[in-house]
Amino acid sequence: MAEEKYMKRAIELAYRGEGFTNPNPMVGAVIVRDGRIIGEGYHRRYGDLHAERDALSRLTEDAQGATLYVTLEPCCHQGKQPPCTGAIIDNGIGKVVIGSRDPNPLVAGKGVKILREAGIEVVEDFLRDECDAINPVFFKYITTKQPYVVLKYAMTMDGKIATKTGASKWITGEESRIEVQKMRHRYMAILAGIGTVLADDPMLNVRVEGLKSPVRIIADSGLRIPLGSSIVKTAGELRTIVAYCEADTDIANKEGAGTKGDVCIDKMEELKKAGVELVKTPSENGHVDVAYLMNYLGGQGIDSVLVEGGGTLNYSLIRAGLVDRVDMFIAPKIFGGRDARTPVEGTGIAGVDEAVGYVLKEVSRHGEDIRLSYVKRSI
Amino acid sequence: MAEEKYMKRAIELAYRGEGFTNPNPMVGAVIVRDGRIIGEGYHRRYGDLHAERDALSRLTEDAQGATLYVTLEPCCHQGKQPPCTGAIIDNGIGKVVIGSRDPNPLVAGKGVKILREAGIEVVEDFLRDECDAINPVFFKYITTKQPYVVLKYAMTMDGKIATKTGASKWITGEESRIEVQKMRHRYMAILAGIGTVLADDPMLNVRVEGLKSPVRIIADSGLRIPLGSSIVKTAGELRTIVAYCEADTDIANKEGAGTKGDVCIDKMEELKKAGVELVKTPSENGHVDVAYLMNYLGGQGIDSVLVEGGGTLNYSLIRAGLVDRVDMFIAPKIFGGRDARTPVEGTGIAGVDEAVGYVLKEVSRHGEDIRLSYVKRSI
Repeated sequence: MAEEKYMKRAIELAYRGEGFTNPNPMVGAVIVRDGRIIGEGYHRRYGDLHAERDALSRLTEDAQGATLYVTLEPCCHQGKQPPCTGAIIDNGIGKVVIGSRDPNPLVAGKGVKILREAGIEVVEDFLRDECDAINPVFFKYITTKQPYVVLKYAMTMDGKIATKTGASKWITGEESRIEVQKMRHRYMAILAGIGTVLADDPMLNVRVEGLKSPVRIIADSGLRIPLGSSIVKTAGELRTIVAYCEADTDIANKEGAGTKGDVCIDKMEELKKAGVELVKTPSENGHVDVAYLMNYLGGQGIDSVLVEGGGTLNYSLIRAGLVDRVDMFIAPKIFGGRDARTPVEGTGIAGVDEAVGYVLKEVSRHGEDIRLSYVKRSI
Repeated sequence: MAEEKYMKRAIELAYRGEGFTNPNPMVGAVIVRDGRIIGEGYHRRYGDLHAERDALSRLTEDAQGATLYVTLEPCCHQGKQPPCTGAIIDNGIGKVVIGSRDPNPLVAGKGVKILREAGIEVVEDFLRDECDAINPVFFKYITTKQPYVVLKYAMTMDGKIATKTGASKWITGEESRIEVQKMRHRYMAILAGIGTVLADDPMLNVRVEGLKSPVRIIADSGLRIPLGSSIVKTAGELRTIVAYCEADTDIANKEGAGTKGDVCIDKMEELKKAGVELVKTPSENGHVDVAYLMNYLGGQGIDSVLVEGGGTLNYSLIRAGLVDRVDMFIAPKIFGGRDARTPVEGTGIAGVDEAVGYVLKEVSRHGEDIRLSYVKRSI
């Protein structure tokens, strides 16, 4: 009989890989014999051992006839690592209890088939919902090659992301800001608009020991990013992508471009020299084409993007149907102001029925703030 | 020994009076002897028996030596009803367990003193927080004579109360709208701005069997309310107050005013004939002076006001520090729109530190929507 406590332990282990396994999934594994855990492991980091092999490598006794609990169907193909099915069979595991089915078309169902053919008892879909909840990013990315997009914003009770003068430091409290650092670690990249860069000169990194910083992406239609900005100055250390859409000649005539003959090329050259990757997208009403950008990022192996944008960028993403999840932090305060900015602006929709719908998934408290997390209606 | 289950039952009973006792408090009472409830009651409606007498009137056996659990300190003064202390003593109650202390200066502590002098054992502050939570309206009103003001609004995830074209039917789902009907029942009056009346021609009543409709108050600086509006047409059935602030001569020159000699007086006369009570307030930058209005309403015995206003009215109230509680309903959808309206507008504050602060008190789900309830920081 399969027992929940072992799968729950495997789920707990899986989450330890958070932020480090992308674009691989987080996976946990527990090996049990005679009611004792004799091995446990998880996928620690992209390129490292898979969870099953990690657990098998830490056995405290022989696994002959033991039961393996694993949050995701074991792989059976050669990737960065040899297939896990082989290791499971070789170690004499008698039964495998699986949470999520593998959505990767290269693997789906095949791992289970191989195990069964080797005479191993397989239980599927065990605590599947909890296991599926570990890897929304992986499930989207592996099936579509498009990144999982998370909109994050902090607003007041009256829906403002800044006062009428643009002041926004700080709307939320320290606990929320620490949580945002964890979100930057969890997702592979962060996307902000040039407005944010010009206003705050942010680093968009993670300043918490043991957590990783995301790839930084700036939507900057006219390539206005200053060579002296913190982002550009640290582009050698942290991968940095700047997406623009205006014609090179238009950019050349802008303030901040070089002064020599072909000035535009100069600024581009300077940015590249500083380590910035430039991506030219089509123009979408003068803005970076976010659908093009996401497709490009997916092709770059970026499985997830946390968007910390202003109302214009956020609206572009919402309108293009690209947002998989929205995390709103609400601070217990009111700014008022007819002209104070709100989290999603742009043109907006006209009829109530045209609204973009989500489903409330989680509610959590962070100090005096509250976070509401929504996911796409279709998921 | 005092037992929680009996006080909890008394609390449950107290809430049955919700919406009907104002401006009196909700109070519940349970009488216990030998571990059996031998009587229970509550304050059912303004002017009816107090909870203690209601319970005593329903005794199933003699109360000699019994324990009375009551959510609020028994009164000892003659009001609409004779003092409860007398009835408690006369019935031979041996012990009284009290939740909230009475904040009414006429009563506070005196009831307890009288009971003790009669040889009755008194326990105070029993489950006091839960008991206090029943009556925030009463506690404010009895001590300040100002109504308890609740701001209620329904918005999208991106803080919009309408689309860019002003469409707002419906942002929230049916469950939230039923909850709003209950709120209209719970509080004594409802306040809306003339903008809402002109846009939607609402009734602002309660359409649920067994619940009462609130007194309707319209903030209408220039007295633009149409004589043919639903509000005016039903002013004979539901108490209706219209607050204005412009000079009578200015009003006389507006569209909608009468055409005879002294036109302004005509419209006022027509409104009065229809049953509308008119209140002239000072002008606060052309708007109704909401502090003056609230003071007036308090003097009228109105202990609580539910505000279903637009951004301008809401901001006036917030800025004047008049809002005791905010109930936000958030629908799981996004409108976007730089020009879509938000729940609190007006001038707005400049520095983040000037924000008006609240404390998150309750979170509840209503269908697909979520309600966040905040109370003033000082309470």
